[in-house]
Amino acid sequence: MNEVAREHGAHRSVIRELFEYAREKKAEGGAGAIYDFTLGNPSVPPPAEVTAALLRAIETTEPTALHGYTTAAGDPAVRRAIADDLSARYGVEVDPTLLYLTVGAAAALSAVFGAVLSPGDEAIVISPYFPEYRVFLSHAGATVVEVTAKAPDFSLDLEKIGEAITDKTALLLYNSPNNPTGAVVSREELAALSDLLRAKEKEVGHPIYLVADEPYRELIYDGEEVPSPLAYYDDTVICYSFSKSLSLPGERIGYVLVSPRAAEAKALYEGVMGAARALGYVCAPSLFQKILPACLGKVSSLETYDRNRKKLYGALTSYGFTAVYPRGAFYLFLKSPEADATAFLARAKAHGILFVPSDSFGVPGYVRIAYCVSEKEIEDSLPAFRALAEEYGLN
Amino acid sequence: MNEVAREHGAHRSVIRELFEYAREKKAEGGAGAIYDFTLGNPSVPPPAEVTAALLRAIETTEPTALHGYTTAAGDPAVRRAIADDLSARYGVEVDPTLLYLTVGAAAALSAVFGAVLSPGDEAIVISPYFPEYRVFLSHAGATVVEVTAKAPDFSLDLEKIGEAITDKTALLLYNSPNNPTGAVVSREELAALSDLLRAKEKEVGHPIYLVADEPYRELIYDGEEVPSPLAYYDDTVICYSFSKSLSLPGERIGYVLVSPRAAEAKALYEGVMGAARALGYVCAPSLFQKILPACLGKVSSLETYDRNRKKLYGALTSYGFTAVYPRGAFYLFLKSPEADATAFLARAKAHGILFVPSDSFGVPGYVRIAYCVSEKEIEDSLPAFRALAEEYGLN
Repeated sequence: MNEVAREHGAHRSVIRELFEYAREKKAEGGAGAIYDFTLGNPSVPPPAEVTAALLRAIETTEPTALHGYTTAAGDPAVRRAIADDLSARYGVEVDPTLLYLTVGAAAALSAVFGAVLSPGDEAIVISPYFPEYRVFLSHAGATVVEVTAKAPDFSLDLEKIGEAITDKTALLLYNSPNNPTGAVVSREELAALSDLLRAKEKEVGHPIYLVADEPYRELIYDGEEVPSPLAYYDDTVICYSFSKSLSLPGERIGYVLVSPRAAEAKALYEGVMGAARALGYVCAPSLFQKILPACLGKVSSLETYDRNRKKLYGALTSYGFTAVYPRGAFYLFLKSPEADATAFLARAKAHGILFVPSDSFGVPGYVRIAYCVSEKEIEDSLPAFRALAEEYGLN
Repeated sequence: MNEVAREHGAHRSVIRELFEYAREKKAEGGAGAIYDFTLGNPSVPPPAEVTAALLRAIETTEPTALHGYTTAAGDPAVRRAIADDLSARYGVEVDPTLLYLTVGAAAALSAVFGAVLSPGDEAIVISPYFPEYRVFLSHAGATVVEVTAKAPDFSLDLEKIGEAITDKTALLLYNSPNNPTGAVVSREELAALSDLLRAKEKEVGHPIYLVADEPYRELIYDGEEVPSPLAYYDDTVICYSFSKSLSLPGERIGYVLVSPRAAEAKALYEGVMGAARALGYVCAPSLFQKILPACLGKVSSLETYDRNRKKLYGALTSYGFTAVYPRGAFYLFLKSPEADATAFLARAKAHGILFVPSDSFGVPGYVRIAYCVSEKEIEDSLPAFRALAEEYGLN
């Protein structure tokens, strides 16, 4: 039996463990309310276009065509529609033959890591980061090199990134808007990062791919924007998921997009196809592929998330907590009032509050609160948060 | 860049290459008819229950629940329903907590291989076999040991299997009904194989898992049956897909089932969960999980496949070709009239006929004809097959 696999199965991600704990607690009932802020499972329904497109596809498409295998990269018409949409939105050239539809962003990342990385290669991740990055990168045989973003706003630390790059660095992975901080990489940061990477590529003499994990791309508030690395840096690979923008996380639909200006773009794309094949992927779910053209540019309503964001940030900071002001995604990154975030969770649990300690995200001393819940759940939880703050003597 | 991944992407499976070739040829049009027998893509629509269940789910289920993440192993109610159905059908105990819903059979196999195998382990496959087995097993670091089934009917060669087992053997993989031969492992064969494996387990001192790849389980003709290894051998793991039985190959839904009597069943199951996680799987597509309880025990109509099978086998043997009489699945395994099956394909192509040479299935000198097409396509192709037979002077 493979002990690494067993370990990954026996000790599941902290997020998933807490999610299961919350599920059990709620099923038990009785012992007081549970305020479950553990999982990034959208609480807002998909845009109306999604349900309409699903019904239309099922009612009007010949079923063997609708549910049959597509080519491994995905239905060509769907890939063309996505490429056209991206090209129009970001003003960059997008080649549909370098776009590969995947079983969600996790599959996209795994395929890209499998294509780029060989054992011994180094992959730079910006902490705090989505914990599964480490699982996927390790599976690809890479050494994970963490560079912590700069508190308090968790912007990129370009100096430290520069220091971390070696001749073994094969890629840098970043996630904006960020899970778990809600930070967004600005145009200025992206331009500076691109300059740095270009200079380092010359120094090390090989491509350093910038892998952008963008499932939260459209979840952005206050009229801000999420700039695309495609417009800044040639050696860019996008990993995307419709999980959050269309509230379809369980359906597993996303893509890899290789920039047409990337070094060895076609070979890299072949590597993505080959890695996905070796990981057991055949094609992205066919029905959900086919509804995408009708849903491009649509986004689940952000109103609830935005109201939750403001209400939670406002209330918690008024109780004396310190938090990163979230500019995108649907997470609030709260500073733990004691050094040990897991101890903080233990005390929060006594108030029925569940969130995720930041340790598994690669930084200590914070917790992630997923506010993709109903507005009522936010409101109902506030007295418990206030009591928790009082317990710590925060206000 | 990872050269293994690139190689897997640049040189895709022969089946997929031919499928793409056929697609292009058809799109071009003009130069005569194309009789495409390359891909196992069901030509028969799903049972009516599938479409009804899809519409009902979309119309009546709250969309964030319908499309949200499920637990990694799949919706508990769905797993319970599948376990109950299997238990009733095969008269064996089935534990829903040892059932893991997957993104199709390819994901199921990949997860099982990742759970069981460590680099250096040996995995026995029965040739001819589905070519992707080799890709998945190699990804898991295993050495693939081929044991060829006995011509002309491609039954198991127990003597050779016994000789192939060493103290490095971790699993034996078999596929019944078989792709590409249509052979079905009988009760007698399964009982004898189980006896052999049990004896060998004692000899080598560790479990030898019997992995049954069963996507064609319900595609069986002439009132025959497909016995379940669950009833014969304790260390059994089932990999299943609804792709063929419900005509949903593009939707990617299947499962792994670990026998409750398997050695270290719980640890093995944890390994499956962990391996799937490291391969980038999060959950099986949610909507298709949820329609399964309403579709269990239903099977796409086998009438067309059965008529195609009889017509094709009858006609081709009457033209002088030799073929394995297919007892299950939807493939006819035809002996190449010349030693080189690829040369045979080249001559068939000139008649507009496309099928898959057997070399990538691990045996030379045959071709696989996927007869999961319309009856008209079978009929229209017969004059071309007759001309091909005449070219070889077969009758």
